[in-house]
Amino acid sequence: MTVTDEFLGNNETYAAAFSGPLALPPRRRLAVVACMDARLDIFSILGLREGDAHIIRNAGGAITEDAVRSLVISQRLLGTRHILLIHHTDCGMLTFTDDEFKTDIQHEVGMRPFWSPESFTDLDEDVRQSIRRIKASPFITHKSARGFVFDVGTGKLHEVK
Amino acid sequence: MTVTDEFLGNNETYAAAFSGPLALPPRRRLAVVACMDARLDIFSILGLREGDAHIIRNAGGAITEDAVRSLVISQRLLGTRHILLIHHTDCGMLTFTDDEFKTDIQHEVGMRPFWSPESFTDLDEDVRQSIRRIKASPFITHKSARGFVFDVGTGKLHEVK
Repeated sequence: MTVTDEFLGNNETYAAAFSGPLALPPRRRLAVVACMDARLDIFSILGLREGDAHIIRNAGGAITEDAVRSLVISQRLLGTRHILLIHHTDCGMLTFTDDEFKTDIQHEVGMRPFWSPESFTDLDEDVRQSIRRIKASPFITHKSARGFVFDVGTGKLHEVK
Repeated sequence: MTVTDEFLGNNETYAAAFSGPLALPPRRRLAVVACMDARLDIFSILGLREGDAHIIRNAGGAITEDAVRSLVISQRLLGTRHILLIHHTDCGMLTFTDDEFKTDIQHEVGMRPFWSPESFTDLDEDVRQSIRRIKASPFITHKSARGFVFDVGTGKLHEVK
């Protein structure tokens, strides 16, 4: 049995207790942008219930062009009005540089990435950088955003000012 | 009290029962790419535990350049080897066209998006499209990928072949 098959088995248990469809627009008008890290269960960390908030996740929780795309769809079509950013301690994005990552790929597969890997060196500063990108985007019209660092050792969120 | 403050209160409860740091690389060597939809609690749908899998999410669960970036970091730096895609019924991405979305934004804020909104018209076909993009990317070197549609009415995953 593959890993995916095992998780499909878990889905049968989930569906057996499922209580039916909720509305499409997020009930709490919130969009969360968080790192893809395996240790971050965003629903549990924030006590979210199904239907509360959009969850956007990528490597680092970066405000990339694609995160902007998702936030614009979230705000314009589905009515979210607040953004909550979650980065975290012990992040993989702190362990390499963009240049070395791109060069390694170039050596292995022949083609150099035409995109920025978005590594960073300072967690709090990267959260501030993300908020600055939100403020600067002409497409994100609702600018209410707060940024946090999740501590993978304690489970706590610390706000970045 | 704002919505964010309320969720920060929930985080105190979460942290009080937190059991300490896990390893950085995903234990099950899995990366999930899913839609940002508020009704999709990926940990619960798949019975994932903290530390099992990377979770990448955006509007539609699309394989965009940023999803490729995240998958490449997931595979090269953190050892994941399987990709699981989750789209879902009643998706917001079925409710508009890219052209009308970009024109609406152009009329409201003056600047036309230079990115594709990635709307689609056929759920199963969009899952297949995503898998094709994975297969075609020179940067994603581990191609093992399966795609599913989550039914927001029943809680069940249906595999797209």
